[in-house]
Amino acid sequence: MLVSEIEFQLFDVNQIGRMLGQGEFAHVDRELVRSILESAAELAAHNFSPLAVDIDANEPAMIDGRARVSAALRAALREYADTGYIAESFPRELGGADLPSAAGTALMAIFGAACTPAAGYVFLTAAAGRLIAAFGTAQQKALWLPPMLEGRWFGTMCLSEPQAGSSLLDATTQATALGNGRYSLRGNKMWISGGDHDATENIVHMVLARIVEDGRRSEALSLFIVPRLRPDGTANGVQLLGLNKKLGHRGTTNCALAFGGETDCIGELRGEAGRGLQCMFQMMNEARIGVGTTAAATAWTAYRYASDYAFERRQGRNVTDGSSARLIDHADIRRMLLTQKAIAEGGLALCLFGASLVDQVRTLDPNGSTRARELLDLLTPVIKSWCAERGVEANSLAIQCMGGAGYVRDHPVERLYRDQRLNPIHEGTNGILAIDLIVRKASRGTGLETLFTAIEVEAREALAIEEFVALAEPMISALGLLRQLLVSINNPPGDVRKAYAFATPTALMVGDLTVSWMWLRQVRALADRRDHWADGKRAAALQMVRQIMPQSLALAPAVRDGMGPYADLAAECFAADWAIQ
Amino acid sequence: MLVSEIEFQLFDVNQIGRMLGQGEFAHVDRELVRSILESAAELAAHNFSPLAVDIDANEPAMIDGRARVSAALRAALREYADTGYIAESFPRELGGADLPSAAGTALMAIFGAACTPAAGYVFLTAAAGRLIAAFGTAQQKALWLPPMLEGRWFGTMCLSEPQAGSSLLDATTQATALGNGRYSLRGNKMWISGGDHDATENIVHMVLARIVEDGRRSEALSLFIVPRLRPDGTANGVQLLGLNKKLGHRGTTNCALAFGGETDCIGELRGEAGRGLQCMFQMMNEARIGVGTTAAATAWTAYRYASDYAFERRQGRNVTDGSSARLIDHADIRRMLLTQKAIAEGGLALCLFGASLVDQVRTLDPNGSTRARELLDLLTPVIKSWCAERGVEANSLAIQCMGGAGYVRDHPVERLYRDQRLNPIHEGTNGILAIDLIVRKASRGTGLETLFTAIEVEAREALAIEEFVALAEPMISALGLLRQLLVSINNPPGDVRKAYAFATPTALMVGDLTVSWMWLRQVRALADRRDHWADGKRAAALQMVRQIMPQSLALAPAVRDGMGPYADLAAECFAADWAIQ
Repeated sequence: MLVSEIEFQLFDVNQIGRMLGQGEFAHVDRELVRSILESAAELAAHNFSPLAVDIDANEPAMIDGRARVSAALRAALREYADTGYIAESFPRELGGADLPSAAGTALMAIFGAACTPAAGYVFLTAAAGRLIAAFGTAQQKALWLPPMLEGRWFGTMCLSEPQAGSSLLDATTQATALGNGRYSLRGNKMWISGGDHDATENIVHMVLARIVEDGRRSEALSLFIVPRLRPDGTANGVQLLGLNKKLGHRGTTNCALAFGGETDCIGELRGEAGRGLQCMFQMMNEARIGVGTTAAATAWTAYRYASDYAFERRQGRNVTDGSSARLIDHADIRRMLLTQKAIAEGGLALCLFGASLVDQVRTLDPNGSTRARELLDLLTPVIKSWCAERGVEANSLAIQCMGGAGYVRDHPVERLYRDQRLNPIHEGTNGILAIDLIVRKASRGTGLETLFTAIEVEAREALAIEEFVALAEPMISALGLLRQLLVSINNPPGDVRKAYAFATPTALMVGDLTVSWMWLRQVRALADRRDHWADGKRAAALQMVRQIMPQSLALAPAVRDGMGPYADLAAECFAADWAIQ
Repeated sequence: MLVSEIEFQLFDVNQIGRMLGQGEFAHVDRELVRSILESAAELAAHNFSPLAVDIDANEPAMIDGRARVSAALRAALREYADTGYIAESFPRELGGADLPSAAGTALMAIFGAACTPAAGYVFLTAAAGRLIAAFGTAQQKALWLPPMLEGRWFGTMCLSEPQAGSSLLDATTQATALGNGRYSLRGNKMWISGGDHDATENIVHMVLARIVEDGRRSEALSLFIVPRLRPDGTANGVQLLGLNKKLGHRGTTNCALAFGGETDCIGELRGEAGRGLQCMFQMMNEARIGVGTTAAATAWTAYRYASDYAFERRQGRNVTDGSSARLIDHADIRRMLLTQKAIAEGGLALCLFGASLVDQVRTLDPNGSTRARELLDLLTPVIKSWCAERGVEANSLAIQCMGGAGYVRDHPVERLYRDQRLNPIHEGTNGILAIDLIVRKASRGTGLETLFTAIEVEAREALAIEEFVALAEPMISALGLLRQLLVSINNPPGDVRKAYAFATPTALMVGDLTVSWMWLRQVRALADRRDHWADGKRAAALQMVRQIMPQSLALAPAVRDGMGPYADLAAECFAADWAIQ
């Protein structure tokens, strides 16, 4: 069960039990967390897993100007909300259960493993709600949060525009002040997940726009609460322009929206004017842990199916005695399953560790809290991009294990492969997150040292214990390599071109090292446990350190040697030849 | 244009001009090859490329027991056949043009780049026809070949069965002798590409089955010619059981077929009884070069689109001066495009080199011919599996370059990504081809030395030339590493478990080294040419050697250190935990 894996991660590896029953989490104990996870797993298995095939094969359509979802999806989301899951990690005064973030992330893993495209609607609603809870006025919280946390209204994030995908600074949507904190919005938004649907009576959009005053557009972006229907139930000038037809993740509508038109579109400023991006980044950080979690969960589900198939399917002969074999008896299949395990469970460990840092920021003393915040800040881009990048590999291996059967729609692994491919793209492309880590964060203050030191302390401890040397040694080497690399990448100082050019491969190295650390933590938490499950964990840890991490580290010489052709050559040299001849 | 890239590969790199205008190819000159390639490119652009969206979105359906294809697909295939392309590389006495195999492979690249799922039908027909040409009796050639080469009848290969996917030795389809070389077939076949359709009046299946005599099934497999309709036009007991619904490659029907049932199914034995696998392997070797070629072509087409988009799409700022940028101005995009170029053009070079070896086997003196045959034998599994494996990476990068636009069906890169994912699976999974190379071929005679020596000779020559040192040095190192590895992998001698366990990563190393060699050959063929195109080639060669090859070589220590957990642990250790708790 995924629940027992998660319990191991939460309580044995991350020891979240230490913060329960006291202080911020006086109202939570291990039994409560376990019972919530177990009933979530039940709801996920009964209401969400069965949706996956249908909402993929029959993707929501645009009918009479609205996106229509299936009755089954609507009912599942209704039950999710009614059970109180949207509100789980909101403060109790807002109607929530104030669960630790680690437990909330565990819930995401459970529903993500069952059907991420269905769960996307409620995940986005919780994220949008958290923005209002963090930055809204008392009036805004009272007006918008109750229907969102009850799941009567869902939420979205409206950042990108047709001409401004990753480049949010180029957003042109305008907000003209009407007084009393109210604004008239006008502009088009693109790639809006859950941007329209008929699953709920209303949709509350968090919209990034520029305030226009006296005909002058503000340089900075502000954040607005813009409902599809005004609180009095009348239309608010948000028009669905079209649905994007996607490779995967089809159950979550993805929309082009027009704000303002025949009907005025009225929004409320949330937080300070001109601080929209900062507010949004807070939400996006959370969303990034969420994407990482669903990426790990998507890899895990495919791994589960591939493993199941490998035990069932008889094919070929055993190498040693020529007897009839199952797929699982072939070394090449074992290699592929172990790689999937290393990625899926390593990714899950990383996400739950990241979430437990969110809790540490709240519960630790000021020193501990600061350290946790620094570490979380560094890990956020790693969590999203590593789980997505390696997740695509894991999902591809799930197909490969199953051969032709993995390539047909009779089995879920082809769908999960399509779903997973979204994750390196949304919530900040992996390339942009790599720049965030390797250009921005690495050059600020002590750079990545907070992370490296945390890894080094545990790796050096492990080095003293015979059993862990094979894991710890390559980690110590990787640390040395990465520290050198981050110096050479920023050389000459002030010239960021090299860091930009090699951010992606370098960020993957940081991710591989970080997940190796997560595996060391898991293996140490096994203590003396000796059974198939524990032995499998130990094998996957070695797979991570010896067969996954070396692949990214192998690019160190190329990174160190310099810009190579990226800076020196004309753009045309990178073109497919047809374009230039 | 792809044609100019191919001309460079054929004439400048592989110098096929040397064998034209004399001996076997006295009837062919460069002008003829160029004009065939150019008219093929025109037909591909006008009749095949436009099909790609429709045959993917509206995949062939089973109606009244038959697979139905669109009129447009039927017309395109008709024109392909009418132009004589199926017959191009058949001997002239069979109605062909007896073109060099290198030119035939170039044709596959052109049509594969336009729409592999459409071209699949005619590629399979040529492959099946070649089997009859090689092993059939005079009577069989006279009966079956003319309608196949004219494209009135299409061909298939029927190897796999529901219980025997990769494990052909477990095939149970039976053939009972009726006298006069005729047999009654009974059994089910699975994964049959082009197994049913209504594009032609008849379909000729090449069926692997066991001869039953006096109630005893033969150990060895034999090969039979089994038409859907008998030559007199009556039904021959081949029933379509169902169509496989695939992730991609949707335009090519993929079928479960029943042979024999209410109507008797009559087939002719082709070649010797009991030599079916050997005959089939000859065809499969050719099919593998074909799969490699379409894999490279699929990567190339996606690269072309991504490159195009990168030049068109404005997004973000230039790092150096903050001015508005195109995607192509970002180093991370350049890195991704260059990797695609290295894979797509490197893969194409490998396939055309392999095909030119087929021609060398025919045209060189006995020594040269033997050497070419040995090299071809080693390269065949590399060609198919490398182009497929790295092709999936390239197609994924094409999506990543385009961001959200790459993930939606408005652009072809998501479809090409789905199409490409088939290639590591069919015509021998990559895992099985790796075992063929690293277990069987590496332990026979001089093992991989024919290949390694060929690479070493050119790498050492290049080492003496300043300009090529950066390419040649890592190749020499890789050669040393691989030679050691192949010794240690077969240690202790006779114990094949380690070779089975690490065949896949080791085969990828061999592939990366081989394609690095292909890049060295390309760069040397550029001579003093200095323009964007030539500079792009040089940059891609460095990308191959310094940023792709090191990733596979990085697994050398893990391979050398031994079996790791694959042999020692119980199967249950590799299971997703839910299965064992």
